[in-house]
Amino acid sequence: MQRYFVPESNWQENQVIITGDDVHHITRVMRMDVKDKIICNHPNGKSCVCEITAKDDDQVVTTIITWQKENVELPVYVTIAQGLPKGDKLELILQKGTELGAASFIPFQAARSIVKWDEKKASKKLSRLRKIAKEASEQSHRTLLPIVEDITTFPELLMTSDTYQHRFVAYEETTRGLPSKKLSHYFQKIQPGEHVCICIGPEGGFSDSEIEQFKQHEFTFIRLGPRILRTETAALYALASLSYYFEEME
Amino acid sequence: MQRYFVPESNWQENQVIITGDDVHHITRVMRMDVKDKIICNHPNGKSCVCEITAKDDDQVVTTIITWQKENVELPVYVTIAQGLPKGDKLELILQKGTELGAASFIPFQAARSIVKWDEKKASKKLSRLRKIAKEASEQSHRTLLPIVEDITTFPELLMTSDTYQHRFVAYEETTRGLPSKKLSHYFQKIQPGEHVCICIGPEGGFSDSEIEQFKQHEFTFIRLGPRILRTETAALYALASLSYYFEEME
Repeated sequence: MQRYFVPESNWQENQVIITGDDVHHITRVMRMDVKDKIICNHPNGKSCVCEITAKDDDQVVTTIITWQKENVELPVYVTIAQGLPKGDKLELILQKGTELGAASFIPFQAARSIVKWDEKKASKKLSRLRKIAKEASEQSHRTLLPIVEDITTFPELLMTSDTYQHRFVAYEETTRGLPSKKLSHYFQKIQPGEHVCICIGPEGGFSDSEIEQFKQHEFTFIRLGPRILRTETAALYALASLSYYFEEME
Repeated sequence: MQRYFVPESNWQENQVIITGDDVHHITRVMRMDVKDKIICNHPNGKSCVCEITAKDDDQVVTTIITWQKENVELPVYVTIAQGLPKGDKLELILQKGTELGAASFIPFQAARSIVKWDEKKASKKLSRLRKIAKEASEQSHRTLLPIVEDITTFPELLMTSDTYQHRFVAYEETTRGLPSKKLSHYFQKIQPGEHVCICIGPEGGFSDSEIEQFKQHEFTFIRLGPRILRTETAALYALASLSYYFEEME
């Protein structure tokens, strides 16, 4: 069944009203009509099966049939802080990271980020990234929509980092043989419900100064397996291995 | 240090001769010269640091300086059998799957594959995919080059499947709640050195008939976390979680 994230203001006692782009998707793309059913996701993470009771060009009115008991969200809140990469790699990271259960994304301007986003470009890019995250959430049947934060500077990233119980940096030199504990050593310390931040550099990695500042803010340097991963693969490894640890171990 | 996979015929007792496209890469792209060093990978998985001793337009002659003690290969041989997906998704799967340690890839024509590869298209596509796998291996500092098999039919895939000790199918209905054991249940049965095949359907998943035939050939149906993954994300989840299990657990 097709799934839509519906903002809180569109929920009434027994009805959910669909507005905006989703009206076009429901009526034109999916060609649904009165009596057809969809799943509506509430921003609080709950979801329900709804039946379409009326539609016009501006809105689709649905009636709530049953609330669902679902549990497809990662039991930890994972934030991927990604140094701006080249080209459309950030879109790939957002899409795949959403499928793999990330709770939020912070794109930040790293010292070695080659692209610079001015205000106009950032606003356009961010709205595209948020659309990608919404679509990927719907397709992967998630009940929570990951947050895509505004573009952040490195000092801002450090300043907000103490809101996470666990702060990690994926660091190439750790893969290259700098002494490091294995990932499970750090995963075992994470409790369900806690917030985890994983920082990933752009193509050129982090600068010496950034590494120094991470140390001062008590980030933990981790490796993601023994092979050198491209920047856009690192987030996916981190999320898949956290999913394995929390969701696929007996 | 830049890394190159060199075919067996180019190895002599103390020398490695680079020919083909890599000559251009070494001399023009990397602008290396006599006395510069590179890493040469032998097809047997060993690698050595080599110094360039001579070069012309057709070849680069290098002398072996030291053999390396490296262990960056996944301790199990993982084959990703991928139902042909749309667009350039197979390239993404090959590139990321190589970074994540896959030993080989089998692209196969699934019942619901929308693209059909005729002979001419297949030959062009395969040589491109093999180039992608070689470059991704070099970039991720692997010592083995994954094999990209020729395009295969579904019956051929089944026929060769008994060469693997472990045969898995990523099956959407398992994610959707069909009773299934967790991944770790199956991973625990895999011993280092064994061969594992993971079959992944195209966008529309496997047909009922394909599922039936997998059952007859005693494939195990697995889920890859509780969220529905796109076809190109499934291989990456499987490889990352196997890497975590075999390489990142204390």
